Amino acid sequence: MKLESQRALADIRMRVQRDLTQFLTDQTTYLGEIGIELIPVAEAINSFLLDGGKRLRPLFAYCGYLAAGGEEDESVIAAVASLELLQACALIHDDLMDNSDTRRGRPSIHRWFEGIHVNEDLSGSAIQYGSSAAILLGDLALVWSDQMLHQSGISAEALMRALSIHDEMRVELMAGQFLDIHEQALATQSVARSLKIARYKSGKYTIERPLHLGASLAIGDNTKRENFTAIFSEYGLPLGEAFQLRDDLLGVFGDPATTGKPAGDDLREGKRTVLMAMTQDRATEAQEKVIAKHFGTADLDLEGVNQMQQVIVDTGAKDHVEQLIDKLTLTALDALDREEITTVSRELLQELADIAVRRAG
Amino acid sequence: MKLESQRALADIRMRVQRDLTQFLTDQTTYLGEIGIELIPVAEAINSFLLDGGKRLRPLFAYCGYLAAGGEEDESVIAAVASLELLQACALIHDDLMDNSDTRRGRPSIHRWFEGIHVNEDLSGSAIQYGSSAAILLGDLALVWSDQMLHQSGISAEALMRALSIHDEMRVELMAGQFLDIHEQALATQSVARSLKIARYKSGKYTIERPLHLGASLAIGDNTKRENFTAIFSEYGLPLGEAFQLRDDLLGVFGDPATTGKPAGDDLREGKRTVLMAMTQDRATEAQEKVIAKHFGTADLDLEGVNQMQQVIVDTGAKDHVEQLIDKLTLTALDALDREEITTVSRELLQELADIAVRRAG
Repeated sequence: MKLESQRALADIRMRVQRDLTQFLTDQTTYLGEIGIELIPVAEAINSFLLDGGKRLRPLFAYCGYLAAGGEEDESVIAAVASLELLQACALIHDDLMDNSDTRRGRPSIHRWFEGIHVNEDLSGSAIQYGSSAAILLGDLALVWSDQMLHQSGISAEALMRALSIHDEMRVELMAGQFLDIHEQALATQSVARSLKIARYKSGKYTIERPLHLGASLAIGDNTKRENFTAIFSEYGLPLGEAFQLRDDLLGVFGDPATTGKPAGDDLREGKRTVLMAMTQDRATEAQEKVIAKHFGTADLDLEGVNQMQQVIVDTGAKDHVEQLIDKLTLTALDALDREEITTVSRELLQELADIAVRRAG
Repeated sequence: MKLESQRALADIRMRVQRDLTQFLTDQTTYLGEIGIELIPVAEAINSFLLDGGKRLRPLFAYCGYLAAGGEEDESVIAAVASLELLQACALIHDDLMDNSDTRRGRPSIHRWFEGIHVNEDLSGSAIQYGSSAAILLGDLALVWSDQMLHQSGISAEALMRALSIHDEMRVELMAGQFLDIHEQALATQSVARSLKIARYKSGKYTIERPLHLGASLAIGDNTKRENFTAIFSEYGLPLGEAFQLRDDLLGVFGDPATTGKPAGDDLREGKRTVLMAMTQDRATEAQEKVIAKHFGTADLDLEGVNQMQQVIVDTGAKDHVEQLIDKLTLTALDALDREEITTVSRELLQELADIAVRRAG
């Protein structure tokens, strides 16, 4: 049964990929007609989007749609595929704000355009050209995600229902992102604040809201939709937290070959994750000194990364986070034990939960 | 009659202001409930948006709606008011890309948040905090503009028609912005390229597309709507160019008291406008030397600004641009001589044209 679910998810992923490819091909032609100078813009978004990614948000949205009783529908595939373009906006702008050099093992968008500036020997500052391009490409990806949703071919009624959830999801994402940059600028860390940021910036946006979007596309009746919305929150909120906690662990212990980011990148960046807040809470004086020396040091070497990893293990924070992931995942899966959720849907959502919290990159 | 049109426009402007105030008040409450750290975000967008601006885009959209036969409708006011939030996104990101210190005589958003970082003695780089905040506030303004349009109360049919124009308008805007930053990085200037950038970045987005949006909100019938769309392009495209040329002149010769920007700001920034391309085309060797010395010099003083102004006058570029504005405006106004456009609508659109091209700031 697990194999069947995996096959079903792979099939959805393929259809999402197909629609993104088609949409981006059309937009590349459109931009090229405005001016050939825009071709590198289209190409950069194309390769950023088509070269990687687990398509988690479209998968959750489409499985939410199916679980809420929706019939297989290619228009809905196109509608949920649009979430990848929203995610592209978030990542492009995030990399710029974090000053990250890489994404999925390739140069981030601002670095890519810096490279174009240098290679083509353009005038002015390459850094400014790169960051301006990243701002605009992120904006464009955001507008394209809207356009792809609007043109997906779903009915006007379904679209009207989807828009209100979609808008709320996006406001939450931006709010979470701001809370995050503000948190990085505070003098102290807090587990409670980090959990809240993770919830808005990542958990709700990656899992709960895409599921709600799916329900809104499947169900016209308000009472019935609200019932599914509640079930999806019960499943999606804890799973979203577990998802983000896995991200925290990968940012410190992840293998660069699968994460596409240098080892210990979150440490170098001084990222205030839940994992780090828990580590700080538990650290002895000696461990605090290691943290003070290494955490947020831009040129932190592998030796320093190893020392920090050791502190995170020794304080028990790593184990605690692993246990928390297990507990949250169980809570999420329990929410699927309802007669409203068919066996097939339950298996799909179990498999998706597994992908979200057991992944290696 | 002119007085009546002016009163009508002032009335629309007031209703737009009322709806923006209400929308932003609601969103401030919403953000505050997520976290009090978000209150400065809401306040900054509030004061950025409510303290100034001519509301040109909502005015063109609503007058387009009325001219296309729409009845007075408060839902449509809310729908077109949303264009101010889109414009806020464009300005916030534009100021960041241009590294501008001020907007409408006040600090730009990135400078404002830099100030918060300094005043509250936050950790890390104030400049990075300011630019991250500006990226996110621009994104949020873009999402809010969508949300305000979606929640405006217009019918699902009208919204579906509006969305496709709205999406196209936003893609054109982002494309124009990219063409602009790319142009700044090229070794040479060209009048033809500058005109194209002005058309996408500013003309279509400020005048033609808002008018089309208005028509889409007023008319369900395809043939009738396409007829108005064609008339509005005939009026809006030349007027949009004239609008941008006026902007070029204000960027060099404008009074800081009315533009809210330092005198000669475009010169200091080295902005590649149509005006500057025409100046370069006509410059003698001696004038070219003055341009090479001053144009794009970040610390250009008033004496340097005066010398540059003199060159722009002496080459005849200033006069030529003024004549071009007059000619384009006449072409635009001629397009209103159609039986489809009522006398009242014609007078409104004449008055709006006057505001767009005769303004001092």
